[in-house]
Amino acid sequence: MASYVVGIDFGTLSGRALVVRVEDGLELASAVHPFPHGVLDRELAGVELPPGWALQDPEDYRDVLRVAVPEAVRAAGIAPSDVIGIGIDFTACTALPVLRDGTPLAELPEFRDRPHAYVKLWKHHAAQPYADQINELAERRKESWLGRYGGRISAEWQFAKALQLLAEDPEIYARADRWIEAADWITWQLCGVETRNVCTAGYKGIYQDGRYPSPTFLSALDPDFAGFVTDKLAHPLSALGTRAGGLTAQAAAWTGLPEGIAVAVGNVDAHVTAPAVKAVHPGQMLAVMGTSICHVINGERLAEVPGMCGVVSGGISPGLWGYEAGQSGVGDIFAWYVDNCVPPAYHARAEREGVDLHTLLSALGSAPPVGAHGMVALDWHSGNRSVLADHDLTGVIVGQSLATRPEDGYWVLMEATALGTRTIIEAFESAGLPVTELVAAGGLIRNPYLMQLYADATRRPVATTASEQGPALGAAIHAAVAAGAHPDIYRASEAMGAQRAAIYHPDATRADGYDTLYAEYRRLHDYFGRGGNDVLHRLRARARRQAVIA
Amino acid sequence: MASYVVGIDFGTLSGRALVVRVEDGLELASAVHPFPHGVLDRELAGVELPPGWALQDPEDYRDVLRVAVPEAVRAAGIAPSDVIGIGIDFTACTALPVLRDGTPLAELPEFRDRPHAYVKLWKHHAAQPYADQINELAERRKESWLGRYGGRISAEWQFAKALQLLAEDPEIYARADRWIEAADWITWQLCGVETRNVCTAGYKGIYQDGRYPSPTFLSALDPDFAGFVTDKLAHPLSALGTRAGGLTAQAAAWTGLPEGIAVAVGNVDAHVTAPAVKAVHPGQMLAVMGTSICHVINGERLAEVPGMCGVVSGGISPGLWGYEAGQSGVGDIFAWYVDNCVPPAYHARAEREGVDLHTLLSALGSAPPVGAHGMVALDWHSGNRSVLADHDLTGVIVGQSLATRPEDGYWVLMEATALGTRTIIEAFESAGLPVTELVAAGGLIRNPYLMQLYADATRRPVATTASEQGPALGAAIHAAVAAGAHPDIYRASEAMGAQRAAIYHPDATRADGYDTLYAEYRRLHDYFGRGGNDVLHRLRARARRQAVIA
Repeated sequence: MASYVVGIDFGTLSGRALVVRVEDGLELASAVHPFPHGVLDRELAGVELPPGWALQDPEDYRDVLRVAVPEAVRAAGIAPSDVIGIGIDFTACTALPVLRDGTPLAELPEFRDRPHAYVKLWKHHAAQPYADQINELAERRKESWLGRYGGRISAEWQFAKALQLLAEDPEIYARADRWIEAADWITWQLCGVETRNVCTAGYKGIYQDGRYPSPTFLSALDPDFAGFVTDKLAHPLSALGTRAGGLTAQAAAWTGLPEGIAVAVGNVDAHVTAPAVKAVHPGQMLAVMGTSICHVINGERLAEVPGMCGVVSGGISPGLWGYEAGQSGVGDIFAWYVDNCVPPAYHARAEREGVDLHTLLSALGSAPPVGAHGMVALDWHSGNRSVLADHDLTGVIVGQSLATRPEDGYWVLMEATALGTRTIIEAFESAGLPVTELVAAGGLIRNPYLMQLYADATRRPVATTASEQGPALGAAIHAAVAAGAHPDIYRASEAMGAQRAAIYHPDATRADGYDTLYAEYRRLHDYFGRGGNDVLHRLRARARRQAVIA
Repeated sequence: MASYVVGIDFGTLSGRALVVRVEDGLELASAVHPFPHGVLDRELAGVELPPGWALQDPEDYRDVLRVAVPEAVRAAGIAPSDVIGIGIDFTACTALPVLRDGTPLAELPEFRDRPHAYVKLWKHHAAQPYADQINELAERRKESWLGRYGGRISAEWQFAKALQLLAEDPEIYARADRWIEAADWITWQLCGVETRNVCTAGYKGIYQDGRYPSPTFLSALDPDFAGFVTDKLAHPLSALGTRAGGLTAQAAAWTGLPEGIAVAVGNVDAHVTAPAVKAVHPGQMLAVMGTSICHVINGERLAEVPGMCGVVSGGISPGLWGYEAGQSGVGDIFAWYVDNCVPPAYHARAEREGVDLHTLLSALGSAPPVGAHGMVALDWHSGNRSVLADHDLTGVIVGQSLATRPEDGYWVLMEATALGTRTIIEAFESAGLPVTELVAAGGLIRNPYLMQLYADATRRPVATTASEQGPALGAAIHAAVAAGAHPDIYRASEAMGAQRAAIYHPDATRADGYDTLYAEYRRLHDYFGRGGNDVLHRLRARARRQAVIA
């Protein structure tokens, strides 16, 4: 008799449950449940939210357990009793304040209309001033953990969001017994006990070398913040792939799965994808390519890579140092271009040929020799995560002429994102961490022109995964390990990980061309991004002031 | 009884005759005749022309005399016998090789299929290597005239084109008794005697301080070029507005005008416009705004302005130093954007609202406060004439984001051209030549948003002219002076020049904003245009090499 596991991927707008066969990773069926409240970024209880806010309602997550899981199991046509484990992954850092028993403060009647009682979604960016404060203090005090995050923590992280909570709604802060990642909270809902996974603690919670930031550091931020770690965060951390507990009777009722089956500790969407695409060995860089790119890669040793998002021991796979980096704008830049910069004739042609505009522009743009369009761009339309960690940067295009065609404009942006990835790869290699292969997952892998471009521009093979459900499959793999069906993540990945859909090999001539363009890219990158000319910051600051006037 | 003059404007694709009342400049009627052969830039006599070539057939110019002039006179409803003078203006440098009697070599049967026998139109750019050679030698020899042209002569000019002729078809060169501007050649066709106008000789023929480049200089370029000036160019120069001669019997037959009436000496389209729009006094900068901008301005003293196109004594108006500068891409950049970068929804909206896209984008783009779009651009999509004199430069845009809208992209290019004009103005002012007012002519003056932008960005009033026929009216004014109807160009301009259509005054707040953006523009201008980062040249050189491969 075959056994099965269920992986649930909690995304930004929905949760997806996937039923997977333990033996070989066969994906039987999946079901998606959109969050009824979506992202609360405009108003809450009739009151307008300030710019940069992004909240969620935790009840929406439980809905996924009640709706998507039974639906997926039903569609898979298996007996629920053959399911031996369940695992989840979540966006991060997505965090919420809860009572000691796990009850979200947002569910207390007296706090229903208080924004700070709700889940702060990863893309809640209103904590930027608090992140700035943390970074300044950490730099002044030369905190040893700062280098582990490329020299700068993000506004998205636990401490920035918690400090905002304390500063702006101290009553809620005081009532919060625990401040917890949604990944750990939904796991708690499944197994009835609080666990904390090593991945979110390390990447989003400044947990390094066995400890969080010290009470001295915290009290220098705000005396009332001194006890934050001790009171609301500290808990033994659980390694990835271990068992958080058994499915509770209530969660069994929600999901229709057997009570007591293994619940895996929580994980993060990008990191959990590594075993799903068989990218768990040192040198294999997983790039989850969608609106943005998240890069994760294992290394055998600890290094501080300038501009990386974080390095965590066991953060991706046990026994290795897990590194994370990212590009803040990729697919969203292509979408912006297609929506805003493409004339009617191209729309008409795409329709006539029955292809979408991305495909048409990619095919046309990729045809000429490298550099024939005469341009180089910086892919900062949505800021820069790695290696500059500067969200106030904006895009740059040089070399336009009256001969520049729509496909040239599209292609140079595609190239810019590829050269952005190369910048990250070279940062890792300069720090002594080889990057030998790219393994791509996410929606953008469906564009073969883009994949070939990344191979050429990075001069490395780019493998794409056959699974459409990387994160959910990864969560299922973790569930299988937690259930004891495979001895560890490595062997589970080997058995259950998805096949390669295709491998793109660099073309030597085009790679030579991209060496040249990369040199130009880097010169402009440093000029505009590292203080040669701070014009992008000045223009953006002016734009913000003017927007207020207008 | 009223008297009339006829002005003929020879453009790139057609000639336009305008009938004007001498007393007050009233424009009675005009007629256009397109050149039957247009621009010969692809092939001649079945043989393909190399890139950069642009020829014309001189017979097309005579056709204008035969067709457009009688048609305009007829449409004006006047008696031809009331016409007392005729004047022309021409594109420049547009030059041709002719026999001693004025016969174009292109009209000799044995040369009908020889490209070098034809008129080389101003935009024939294939003489660039010869211009480079002239510039290098002039710089090495510290030729005193080089500073009069901003430090660099153009591939468009007489000497570059003639040197190309010598190098590439020495037989034609040898047969050419004269090498003459089309402006002077068509005047010769009208009055039967060779004249040479001071304007083209000065701006396009390196005539400075009473002499052309020396035989020593010429022979250093090529020993066979030593006699070029003496044999083919030298001729007494005629001041603008003087009488070249009387209309010949043959030209009277062509035009239907009375034999013997005054024929004015030739002139250049931009320069001749100055009296037509009453911009003949020091400080008044005329900007002829179309696909490119030509700036002409009178000064009371001689100065060498870096990057200007030329300074000529009496080059615009007698007794003053006439300065010329230019921007190589303006209206053509806007046209490129509208053709290549605007999505269907904007096309649909423009159609729905019954406005053209330029108007729609201008209206939307001009609405926010200055700098609200967060961008700055360099307007080099078609190279840069003044002040960098570098046709290999290309466009730059910094500050794009996912919030950038189509109208923002359009507006930042409009701004870039305005800041390009400001760069030229400041070069003049730094050289001690005040620029107090802009007087705009040309097709772009129909865009009121653009005019207001130029006022704001230069912090100067921008007056637009009510005449749709600036050059032809200017040619008519010169004809009136040549005929003795007005004592000089100044008084003729006062009497016959067109009224102002509107005057745009700078808005103080917006002008403050443009001071800030101008500082950014200049920093990028010098970085990309003056060697801070030579990336634009490298990218363009690569693009050219790749285009050959492709």
